[in-house]
Amino acid sequence: MSSPIASRLAAVRSEMAQLNLDAFIQPRADEYLGEYVPAHNERLLWLSGFTGSAGMAIVMKNSAAIFVDGRYVVQVRQQVDAALYSYQSLTDMPQYQWLAEHLPSGSRVGVDPRCHTLAWFDEAKMALDKAGIELVALARNPVDSCWQPRPAAGNAPAQLFSDALAGKTSGQKRREIGALIQKAGADVALVSALDSFCWLLNIRGQDIPRIPVILGTALLYADGRMTLFTRLEKLPEDIAAHVGEGVSFREEAALNEALSALNGKKLLADPHTANAASQLQAKAAGAKLIAGSDPVALAKACKNPTEMQGMIDSHIRDGVAVSRFLAWLDNEVANGRLHDEAVLADKLESFRKQHPQYREPSFDTISAAGSNAAMCHYNYANGTPKMLEMNSIYLVDSGAQYQDGTTDVTRTIAIGKVTDEQKKLVTLVLKGHIALDQARFPKGTSGQQLDMLARQYLWQQGFDYDHGTGHGVGHYLSVHEGPQRIAKNHNAVALAPGMVISNEPGYYREGAFGIRLENLITVKPCTELAGAERETYCFEALTLIPMDKRLFDKALLNADEIAWLNRYHQRVYDTLSPRLSGSELAWLQQATAAL
Amino acid sequence: MSSPIASRLAAVRSEMAQLNLDAFIQPRADEYLGEYVPAHNERLLWLSGFTGSAGMAIVMKNSAAIFVDGRYVVQVRQQVDAALYSYQSLTDMPQYQWLAEHLPSGSRVGVDPRCHTLAWFDEAKMALDKAGIELVALARNPVDSCWQPRPAAGNAPAQLFSDALAGKTSGQKRREIGALIQKAGADVALVSALDSFCWLLNIRGQDIPRIPVILGTALLYADGRMTLFTRLEKLPEDIAAHVGEGVSFREEAALNEALSALNGKKLLADPHTANAASQLQAKAAGAKLIAGSDPVALAKACKNPTEMQGMIDSHIRDGVAVSRFLAWLDNEVANGRLHDEAVLADKLESFRKQHPQYREPSFDTISAAGSNAAMCHYNYANGTPKMLEMNSIYLVDSGAQYQDGTTDVTRTIAIGKVTDEQKKLVTLVLKGHIALDQARFPKGTSGQQLDMLARQYLWQQGFDYDHGTGHGVGHYLSVHEGPQRIAKNHNAVALAPGMVISNEPGYYREGAFGIRLENLITVKPCTELAGAERETYCFEALTLIPMDKRLFDKALLNADEIAWLNRYHQRVYDTLSPRLSGSELAWLQQATAAL
Repeated sequence: MSSPIASRLAAVRSEMAQLNLDAFIQPRADEYLGEYVPAHNERLLWLSGFTGSAGMAIVMKNSAAIFVDGRYVVQVRQQVDAALYSYQSLTDMPQYQWLAEHLPSGSRVGVDPRCHTLAWFDEAKMALDKAGIELVALARNPVDSCWQPRPAAGNAPAQLFSDALAGKTSGQKRREIGALIQKAGADVALVSALDSFCWLLNIRGQDIPRIPVILGTALLYADGRMTLFTRLEKLPEDIAAHVGEGVSFREEAALNEALSALNGKKLLADPHTANAASQLQAKAAGAKLIAGSDPVALAKACKNPTEMQGMIDSHIRDGVAVSRFLAWLDNEVANGRLHDEAVLADKLESFRKQHPQYREPSFDTISAAGSNAAMCHYNYANGTPKMLEMNSIYLVDSGAQYQDGTTDVTRTIAIGKVTDEQKKLVTLVLKGHIALDQARFPKGTSGQQLDMLARQYLWQQGFDYDHGTGHGVGHYLSVHEGPQRIAKNHNAVALAPGMVISNEPGYYREGAFGIRLENLITVKPCTELAGAERETYCFEALTLIPMDKRLFDKALLNADEIAWLNRYHQRVYDTLSPRLSGSELAWLQQATAAL
Repeated sequence: MSSPIASRLAAVRSEMAQLNLDAFIQPRADEYLGEYVPAHNERLLWLSGFTGSAGMAIVMKNSAAIFVDGRYVVQVRQQVDAALYSYQSLTDMPQYQWLAEHLPSGSRVGVDPRCHTLAWFDEAKMALDKAGIELVALARNPVDSCWQPRPAAGNAPAQLFSDALAGKTSGQKRREIGALIQKAGADVALVSALDSFCWLLNIRGQDIPRIPVILGTALLYADGRMTLFTRLEKLPEDIAAHVGEGVSFREEAALNEALSALNGKKLLADPHTANAASQLQAKAAGAKLIAGSDPVALAKACKNPTEMQGMIDSHIRDGVAVSRFLAWLDNEVANGRLHDEAVLADKLESFRKQHPQYREPSFDTISAAGSNAAMCHYNYANGTPKMLEMNSIYLVDSGAQYQDGTTDVTRTIAIGKVTDEQKKLVTLVLKGHIALDQARFPKGTSGQQLDMLARQYLWQQGFDYDHGTGHGVGHYLSVHEGPQRIAKNHNAVALAPGMVISNEPGYYREGAFGIRLENLITVKPCTELAGAERETYCFEALTLIPMDKRLFDKALLNADEIAWLNRYHQRVYDTLSPRLSGSELAWLQQATAAL
């Protein structure tokens, strides 16, 4: 019981006792509710040791539980002490439901309302209320009270993002989105997503890892005026001229005051993405909350032609970099030089770094050898990087932030010989990938409707994977963006031209191996269709990187699927070959040769 | 302006003026919110002339609009006078949204809160409020005030449904569902669905067409006690002994009094299926509403072994009857005897009637010749039945209520020669039907996730159909039951073993022809799967009736699809051949011969 985590739990429990709490809930999220959390806000990590990108801890008087999803069932057991936390599923039932079943009536449960969405807060309150349990919105987070020494917030300056790369001025964007706010019947919108207000202002930043944004919150008015609440010292002097008229900047601490001044105003806020604290505050001050989705999200997701050109260019140069890495890797393995996961990830990044527009990885590279790949969001930096072994599968899921676009790709690579069973499973994943890539669908179709296309061949054999099939990708912004998604879960957002989304079915066998085949694809009108009665859309792959044919069982592919693979590889070859030479070109040639 | 509809509109407008209303909304639904509406409650029909199974009228001071879905776009233009009503889409946007865009701020909109769900009422109120429009819950429906003479309610007696056919006693069912009510944190549930309370009490009735139920509403308590509010004179004397202890019966008019006595109680009610009036009344009386789905629906949907055996038996005898009809039809056409749609429907029913357990059609037979089949829910009784024509397609969608089960099947039949284009489209529909039939999927999968399996081949060519792919089917109850559904729309109910659901993709070309291939299928564990890692389910067809091979283009089917068709037809032959003889057996033999 002398571990740092044990002492932290003891300190938090002592805070809880003072607040008369029977339980305290700490999710991974901070007040910005993004996927990446700056180091000074990594409360769940401090409290549990868990580094995954999603999770929740519940601390009770004599026990604690940590909740993670299917991606992290293996990892959580490595990182979090079973003597301190029981392991629970994040997705089987809502955690407030779990609490309702584990606490007696009359209990008090504390939460930091900044770390939860309003929707979650309202649902939790209702469910706990039904069980006679009180949900308490805490004025101060017990973790914040106990965390000493706590890292300081970052101080990197914001950058102006040129209109030439953005394709639209901030003023144009703000007026367009302002009109949507008016249409929603609101006076003003709470723009809480960091990538949303950065996109609106054509700025970028370095406040959190992997996503080039600054921390803050914005209010956008129906007439296009906007106030950004952020650390003012981050802002360059020429920002006023860059963003144009109607934008004011205030310190973050002034947000509460601004929300309190909304008495009588109609505030559009997304209860599913914005934190409960800000909406509860506006409501308490007499604002009328209009629940609606982030008005920026859809416009940001549908890339304009300039943004799309940046994405295309980024994917070509990313294709060159990753192909060079794969050529290097094959050569190393052929020569008996097996490296560890960290060396491989660094080597991969070294090829990307050669491009002047490269900025940083778009997420922590998943460089996973053998059984580590069964943890679908494995991070080699959390332990001792494993060495590649002969006759295994290597999975690498990585992406780049370029100045004009964002990439994300997964390739699964044969290291020596692979078994027939492994080939079968890779081929089932490939068949799903192809089915989704080749889908045609009428306007109005959501990603949820298409999700099973990628799973169907695994399902036919009693297999599945516990993650979504596709997430939206931003334009030199977050590699995970909404509002569209391809997944089992409810999502009614129609796929629309210009959206960029991943196509990444996988398969994971715990303790053995992991498979994932991921391209980014973009939605476009299906113009070649003669006689179509419905407005029909299809996908086009942006990612142009060979898939490892050594893992495919040709006998399991039908003629259309083989033709797809050969067509894709031909396109990869045609695009990348003018940009490679020597042994790298020779590698590309054989890697893209017809199956 | 001297048509009966015009006079009725005038009368309703005069009522509206007295109530100071700018608009009045009348949906097809009555206070029971079922799909079938007894004649004395057909308010939309009285008001507009429209006979479809879904729709809504909005009467304004100087105009009126009728809203129908894709199934009825053709039919509404035949039945409803364009001089009196504009035609609008029921599904493009909610009708209150349409009203918000068509009425000025300050307007008053009246509704009969018995004819809408609480969810609709709440949403409408919020949306209209946003536009400054008042939604008024009327104490008396203006249609009811004007409708003279109005048909009387039916008076047929209720029937006791034997425990031997039901597979469980009412007491068992009520205790099981009562436990669910307790688990939902409620004291009592409003059981408003007619088939739900009839299933709970093991009774049936004849109060509405096509569904063997009685009219009424029930309250079911957490301890299994139950009160049914209905016309007491319908109930047979021995009902008390049949339903067992804990059931009381009261007149329907006593429901309001019972709801008003729920002060302080927690009432579980489904805001999406129960009418707004009853929930608003309970709430006004001080009951606490707990929103939750009908606790009976899922148990009723998952047939117990006795119920399933009844469904299987019903489908075998239905297969005999429909096959005999198809054999007769082929012979008539071969001999140049072309009949009209009504004669065909009557002839089909005549074969069903030969079985002693046959009771009535499970819905109005869609007997549609040629272009009439483009109206997917066409009813020949609404106009002059059309004659079959040579070189066309005939579509017949029909079902039976047998004493121990309910059927629903659609077959599309070649009458003479058909075009290659028609064959292509029928084959695309067949491919979708096969893909859904053959699906395997992990426990937890909803019908929404599988819907596109049936559409994918049409989508690939820019086609689609504007109706769901599958609806649940009851056990000698409603041919359309929830909670599961296979459709584009959001439905998170997991498919579970014992559910019976239709598989009915289609294609409709307005003014030309219509295609639909429908079997009922049941969900069952996929036991034959070696090495499955997930609990996997699959479907098995209940319907055993030949599909018309003359409409299939073999070149468009792959080997697996051809094997599926031949396997299905072999099963049809093996099951039905011992029950047919002579020319009917000979017809079956060729109809089910391998493609």
